[in-house]
Amino acid sequence: MKIVECVPNFSEGRDIEKINRIMDVVKTDEHIKLVNYESDADYNRTVVTLIGDPNHMINLILKMVEVCLKEIDLNKHSGEHARMGAIDVIPFIPISDITMKECISYSEKCAELIYEKYDIPCFLYAEAARFEDRKSLPSIRKGEFEGMKDKIKDPHWLPDFGKQEIHPTFGCIGVGARDFLVAYNIDIATEDESPAKKMARTIRKSSGGFQYVQAGPVYLENRKHTQVTMNILNYKKNPIYRIFETIKMEAKRYHVEVTGAEIVGLVPKDALVRSLKYYYACNNLEFPESISLKEVVQDVKKYMLFRDFDETKIIDYFL
Amino acid sequence: MKIVECVPNFSEGRDIEKINRIMDVVKTDEHIKLVNYESDADYNRTVVTLIGDPNHMINLILKMVEVCLKEIDLNKHSGEHARMGAIDVIPFIPISDITMKECISYSEKCAELIYEKYDIPCFLYAEAARFEDRKSLPSIRKGEFEGMKDKIKDPHWLPDFGKQEIHPTFGCIGVGARDFLVAYNIDIATEDESPAKKMARTIRKSSGGFQYVQAGPVYLENRKHTQVTMNILNYKKNPIYRIFETIKMEAKRYHVEVTGAEIVGLVPKDALVRSLKYYYACNNLEFPESISLKEVVQDVKKYMLFRDFDETKIIDYFL
Repeated sequence: MKIVECVPNFSEGRDIEKINRIMDVVKTDEHIKLVNYESDADYNRTVVTLIGDPNHMINLILKMVEVCLKEIDLNKHSGEHARMGAIDVIPFIPISDITMKECISYSEKCAELIYEKYDIPCFLYAEAARFEDRKSLPSIRKGEFEGMKDKIKDPHWLPDFGKQEIHPTFGCIGVGARDFLVAYNIDIATEDESPAKKMARTIRKSSGGFQYVQAGPVYLENRKHTQVTMNILNYKKNPIYRIFETIKMEAKRYHVEVTGAEIVGLVPKDALVRSLKYYYACNNLEFPESISLKEVVQDVKKYMLFRDFDETKIIDYFL
Repeated sequence: MKIVECVPNFSEGRDIEKINRIMDVVKTDEHIKLVNYESDADYNRTVVTLIGDPNHMINLILKMVEVCLKEIDLNKHSGEHARMGAIDVIPFIPISDITMKECISYSEKCAELIYEKYDIPCFLYAEAARFEDRKSLPSIRKGEFEGMKDKIKDPHWLPDFGKQEIHPTFGCIGVGARDFLVAYNIDIATEDESPAKKMARTIRKSSGGFQYVQAGPVYLENRKHTQVTMNILNYKKNPIYRIFETIKMEAKRYHVEVTGAEIVGLVPKDALVRSLKYYYACNNLEFPESISLKEVVQDVKKYMLFRDFDETKIIDYFL
């Protein structure tokens, strides 16, 4: 049975009633499993993690677009996280019995239907991208909702589906296929954004850092401290522990403390195990042949200061 | 007055008499300053660092090609360092009152003359490259002297100057222009090559590491330990200290000791100062407004375990 993961996010993270009305559509779907969803008031967005059959996934996505079209007007939206659409991004991720190539086809079908039904322009990104500079979502999204009004009229930025005009309240969407992405943030115990900014630069690809890391600084108004916020596009080649230890190394020069870390959405057990092996080896401990999700949770809290983390954030919990 | 640095290396690091006969040509040149040269028996090559006027530089390079043609037969050569020519690489590096564009022109002129006078095929590399896959020297050199015999017949690998046949004893040369490159090795106190191999992978671009680092493992027969050997192509974006600290972080898991580090050839004072600032900051020390070369030498030994290092390895000493 073909299983994809899909992690759409929508641009509302504050108004509980709106969030509930949108999430009702998801929760009442018979075919797709809602793994979890997280609303963040600072980012003012909600990340939804879904698992299921790819055709049913497309149907649910269309229903989500419909409800977000009613509920969200980006002209009235602000938040820490960059966005160009009321639903900003729709990635199809191969999980079980399905290839990347198939996920690309499903993403194309999904984008085509969104345009046909709701007249919202869609850009194909990541593995589904048809142009080199559409592989990275930030490259497409640069300028955000406000800037896309003009950008989309540039022939270079003709959307893959849709006309050269963003939807007046919804904006436009990045639809694509990609490998599993770890959204990972490291807490820096200061309100001064400058250390997080400098540290983000040291680890991210775009300024010379690790090949599969996109990172930036952010100030969390509600928590009163900064973070280095990042996506790890390939956790096998850029394991979490190495990024965590590099940030700790850089933090020393700024005399700031690394006090915690968090995963946004889900993470594969494999990604955590790869990092735990580093700490076991450093501490002269043999890594067990099989390790329970419960033990993994304990260990990542101990060695990598994960907070707000439990078994239900590990994708293997749902398989 | 236009000044370029040029760092040709030739493939002889063991036979003192041969090395002397080749270096005599360099030492007796009236116009070009020989900054230093280092022969390495394990690598079986000699790296020569030259500074001076670009036209005189080309004349000296031609004389070096002539003497290496007499002295070196690559069919009888082996060593730790990859090579495709008796002189393997000739980079022109802008130092003073000269642009990268001018350095590219000088490298083209040099390659053309080498082919005309000695019938040795030349590939333009780095900033002078005319094809994407000739930017990196290892990409051109893959297969080395032995493999280039066939590779050069592939239309894709038509040399930029010369016919599709390597010189039977000399091979072929990479000629180009590039920014200052730091050749840097970190000592790992074990004879087992596996930790150095794994650590090289964590830092080098080609396997997901830092953007401007090329690295590999090497076993030094004469010193009886391994090294992570590397080129840093942009020391501003990938500073030495960060690579050194990352290697120390990884070394912990393999329970191996990082016992020293060395610079091959020269390094700009600026590259050292940038790294020292990290250690000063970590130690709550204010970095002095001006720091002498002597102090820099003391500090890099203290904080980054440099060995066999003195002021004459800092390029600013010669300016």
